[in-house]
Amino acid sequence: MPGEFDLIRRHFTRPAGHTALAVGDDAALLAPRPGMQLAVSTDMLVAGTHFLPDTDPTDLGWKTLAVNLSDLAAMGAEPRWAFLALALPVADDAWLAAFADGLFACAEAFGVDLAGGDTTRGPLNLTVTVIGEVPAGQAITRGGARPGDRLWVSGQPGRAALGLAALRGGLALPPDGRARCLAALHRPQPRVALGLALRGLASAMLDVSDGLLGDLNHILTASRCGAIVDIPVLPLEPLLACGAPHDEALPALLSGGDDYELLFAAPPAASAAIADVAVRLDLPLHCIGQLTAQPGGLLLRDADGSLRPPTTTGYDHFAR
Amino acid sequence: MPGEFDLIRRHFTRPAGHTALAVGDDAALLAPRPGMQLAVSTDMLVAGTHFLPDTDPTDLGWKTLAVNLSDLAAMGAEPRWAFLALALPVADDAWLAAFADGLFACAEAFGVDLAGGDTTRGPLNLTVTVIGEVPAGQAITRGGARPGDRLWVSGQPGRAALGLAALRGGLALPPDGRARCLAALHRPQPRVALGLALRGLASAMLDVSDGLLGDLNHILTASRCGAIVDIPVLPLEPLLACGAPHDEALPALLSGGDDYELLFAAPPAASAAIADVAVRLDLPLHCIGQLTAQPGGLLLRDADGSLRPPTTTGYDHFAR
Repeated sequence: MPGEFDLIRRHFTRPAGHTALAVGDDAALLAPRPGMQLAVSTDMLVAGTHFLPDTDPTDLGWKTLAVNLSDLAAMGAEPRWAFLALALPVADDAWLAAFADGLFACAEAFGVDLAGGDTTRGPLNLTVTVIGEVPAGQAITRGGARPGDRLWVSGQPGRAALGLAALRGGLALPPDGRARCLAALHRPQPRVALGLALRGLASAMLDVSDGLLGDLNHILTASRCGAIVDIPVLPLEPLLACGAPHDEALPALLSGGDDYELLFAAPPAASAAIADVAVRLDLPLHCIGQLTAQPGGLLLRDADGSLRPPTTTGYDHFAR
Repeated sequence: MPGEFDLIRRHFTRPAGHTALAVGDDAALLAPRPGMQLAVSTDMLVAGTHFLPDTDPTDLGWKTLAVNLSDLAAMGAEPRWAFLALALPVADDAWLAAFADGLFACAEAFGVDLAGGDTTRGPLNLTVTVIGEVPAGQAITRGGARPGDRLWVSGQPGRAALGLAALRGGLALPPDGRARCLAALHRPQPRVALGLALRGLASAMLDVSDGLLGDLNHILTASRCGAIVDIPVLPLEPLLACGAPHDEALPALLSGGDDYELLFAAPPAASAAIADVAVRLDLPLHCIGQLTAQPGGLLLRDADGSLRPPTTTGYDHFAR
């Protein structure tokens, strides 16, 4: 069995494009560009809690980095560097090679240097820290939404939750729909280009990792607003097209996590520019409601105009 | 049982001194000072591998951050921000409160903001990422040592290894010696002030985490040098004063990790300035040998002048 240092060298040392000193010293050295603030996020993924233990390691490598890049996208930051801390029960060479392939595929797709990390023996744990750059003062936080702002979500939220339900055997989907839902679950696409494009347009933003309504509540709390979500305009059609029945599709869209779409608020005057962004990026952007002046008041509006509070909440690792 | 978000808020949200936006958004926002490079290091600590499962949580909180700050000290960087990712098997409020106390005690002692993190359910795992600042071009790497440079080590290396042996029951020490060795093991002091003072003096540096000789090999490899370590001048006396027998003290000094002392090389002309640093910081700095032109050649010199290769190596998490 190769030693720790060999493992790290062999699988995780690849040329670094923009890192002054990468893997192999006590610390990596980075040179941020002048005028930039740094956005930094850490996510810990644990087998059994965040992914199934038999997840394909290449998919897992991709997703481990992708979910972190999604956090930077949600700030309007440009991803630059990543650090990987990895605990493994055994030093499995084939597993590490496949995991590294997925991780570096994602790093290369989004221009990120893997600049350092740590490897140790222990129950499988994947912890990534990512660092991005955003011009000082231009980051998009959760706290800037105002009453009257429109509420938007990107892409096709809900597919990952349907994929997970299909994997667990509780949901039968036709082969092509199942494949699209599993791709959303295993290879989420961090909306990096969208996050950059929304600088100066969005007033508040986050990525949907724990469910649209639950994460929306974080914006409402931080911005001291309420919101009305219009059920009839939700992008349900892509989920129905995957073969999901309506009564599975709507909860997946409202409460499913793991798609890593961006949820954002923007003043009505920005709507035309946002529509232009959707065309330029070839990415659907759905206006699904609006912000209100009732702090914390989150309501769903049905087709007949009636308002009701939602019955589901976000996902909480300790409260299940 | 409180939810994840409550846990984080209650134990890990304290005022941040120099962070533009800390815990609670998708990412933290940091504003590095102009002209600074960033030194970044990640360390993952796993119960059973890096610490005993019954370790006092306050000590563990201190050490989890301290070992990371040591990596920054070893680059000559000033610690600024830390990020904590924490997997816990259960959300134990008393344990978290004690752990947070130790962590923040260390953060406050060294001027570090806890700027973000992640908390999840899983086998106990503590992963810290630290970010420090160093003026561009002034970081002290492992690769700058030259033949003829003197080799130095700080403090009293070996005490933590003696403390661990005492804890495990294999070594009997008198109460005061045992207390000093356990303090070294549980409350290591990252040599931050020393790292800063050695900018412009040290040619290569690292922190001793896996054993003096094993870590020295990393300097030799990176600097393409050899070294002779003079056994008679090693700081053995503090270990003997703790009550350790000579045949336990020498291996603890040469191969024990966990003291987090700094090991560095410096040109002979810097020796007087280094002695001044020792006085100013009230920290012993021991000149224990010199660098040679034989790449990778590490030799021990006994009192009679005879040279021999060491028989022990560093600690490797996967090679045991």
